[in-house]
Amino acid sequence: MSITVVGSVALDTVYTPFGQAQDALGGSASYFATAASLYDDVNLVGVVGEDFPQEHLSFLRTRSAGLGSLQVVPGKTFRWGGRYAPDMNTRETLYTELGVFAEFQPSLPVAYGRAEVVFLANIHPALQLDVLQQTEGGGAKLRALDTMNLWIETTHDALTDVLRKVDVVMIAEEEARQYADTPNLRTAARTILELGPKILVIKQGPYGSLLMGADGSYFVAPSYPIEEVRDPTGAGDAFAGGFLGYLATRLRSGHELAPADYQRGLVHGNILGSFACEDFSVGKLKEVTAADIASRYQKCVSFTHFEAAWSAGKSTVATA
Amino acid sequence: MSITVVGSVALDTVYTPFGQAQDALGGSASYFATAASLYDDVNLVGVVGEDFPQEHLSFLRTRSAGLGSLQVVPGKTFRWGGRYAPDMNTRETLYTELGVFAEFQPSLPVAYGRAEVVFLANIHPALQLDVLQQTEGGGAKLRALDTMNLWIETTHDALTDVLRKVDVVMIAEEEARQYADTPNLRTAARTILELGPKILVIKQGPYGSLLMGADGSYFVAPSYPIEEVRDPTGAGDAFAGGFLGYLATRLRSGHELAPADYQRGLVHGNILGSFACEDFSVGKLKEVTAADIASRYQKCVSFTHFEAAWSAGKSTVATA
Repeated sequence: MSITVVGSVALDTVYTPFGQAQDALGGSASYFATAASLYDDVNLVGVVGEDFPQEHLSFLRTRSAGLGSLQVVPGKTFRWGGRYAPDMNTRETLYTELGVFAEFQPSLPVAYGRAEVVFLANIHPALQLDVLQQTEGGGAKLRALDTMNLWIETTHDALTDVLRKVDVVMIAEEEARQYADTPNLRTAARTILELGPKILVIKQGPYGSLLMGADGSYFVAPSYPIEEVRDPTGAGDAFAGGFLGYLATRLRSGHELAPADYQRGLVHGNILGSFACEDFSVGKLKEVTAADIASRYQKCVSFTHFEAAWSAGKSTVATA
Repeated sequence: MSITVVGSVALDTVYTPFGQAQDALGGSASYFATAASLYDDVNLVGVVGEDFPQEHLSFLRTRSAGLGSLQVVPGKTFRWGGRYAPDMNTRETLYTELGVFAEFQPSLPVAYGRAEVVFLANIHPALQLDVLQQTEGGGAKLRALDTMNLWIETTHDALTDVLRKVDVVMIAEEEARQYADTPNLRTAARTILELGPKILVIKQGPYGSLLMGADGSYFVAPSYPIEEVRDPTGAGDAFAGGFLGYLATRLRSGHELAPADYQRGLVHGNILGSFACEDFSVGKLKEVTAADIASRYQKCVSFTHFEAAWSAGKSTVATA
């Protein structure tokens, strides 16, 4: 049993009010694998250049069942630079140098195509579709994707094609509205769910995440509060790692996924996202233990659960 | 037992993508009283001009134990006009005509000063302080206030004075940051709580609300999802009405307020806020029944509670 992730592996330079990181390990697949590997074996499919530091390769090897599909090719690794505003809610992209990522053509070993869970991180929808086709017949039980405003704006039709073929869509709130061209989030959710996915996960940044099911189900998990957001880069991918990682453990133990599983998955997603924000790159994520996750999980219970019964007051209310 | 509210009673003209309302009943005290009166008797302290429609007076009479302190004086009623952006998240003020509200000097009948709960809605901090002084020795068990950016910017010191003297502060997230001059919400919360309040309620608009206690307690109640926000005006005051109204029922039954009470109160606040958004003015709020509240309360349980136990997965996680 395992999770296959296809996404970017990058060298990030990030400035925040708390400091900076230079050419640190970044990319959606790196964050996802670091988080999801706490739950299950991860197969990482990506590409880096010959300049990719050995130290990062060694680390990724500890977080994936093998790096058989992390291609190391002539050229430069994908580099991204960004600077966060003092409120940490907006960021400016300083540069994007695609390097070898521009020509990335994911090719899955047969074993990777047999993973129970497939995560198509935020890459070109045509590549996401291609990877899905490579896993056809492989028996994947859960296929999930993430996307971003760039693909909504430039490859709307290709994105729609791949949205039709996955089980779970994970998308930021403003991007869901953008895709469906409506300010109403519930209308946007219906637009996406009508394409075929069973589950829509709306990422709300500092507020947490929502889960909406094609069956009309609805669940909210507020974010885990941390003292200080030092660098939110990769939080969405770590979220995906916690969410799908937890679901992989359920599939592994032979369960059909039930609403309660998705709900707990959402909480795990928020927790892994919170760890991602506490340091630059995967600095905090790579030190997280199962006990750390368990501790935050119990705290999430404590700050969201309330007494289901309430004694009524005035006569009008008391008649309820 | 009762709740005394001091705030504005206004005639609002509001434009939203869903329609408009002309000179409709508005003002913080109107929304609050309409919501809180579902839980307990409300004493409304405010002022209107001689142009205030009889129909609104009649309605307010049904929602307050008496209108002994709604002064009707020569002049014009406070009027406000606003237009919401298509996404409903920002609004433009078209006009603010204070009318008789400019000279408002709240004067509480002795009976009102004996209320168990006092709510200082969003008015000048000096007036809030004056009302607090009028209730001194009256035995109020819970004194709460709301405020806004205007007072933070123009009367910061007076606001600080009154913050020192209340039990509960209810404030919008961005205004908490603004008051404490920090982008970090937890730092802002500590700044406010260190002044003396026991409870800080952070209103997060469409995301719901947070509760932070001086004892370090923390609780989150996501908003109740409604199909369509037709007019969010007054949602914060209806929220306060649900929150404090519920707490009043607990005090009435002889309880000391416990964390579980504040948590349930937050849920009631969100529910009453959701009703406020479903129609212009108090259009929906005035039709709400106890059964409607009870139904939404149970739905809030269903979309926030999850299994507190989670079966672990991979060996690292299983050691938790």
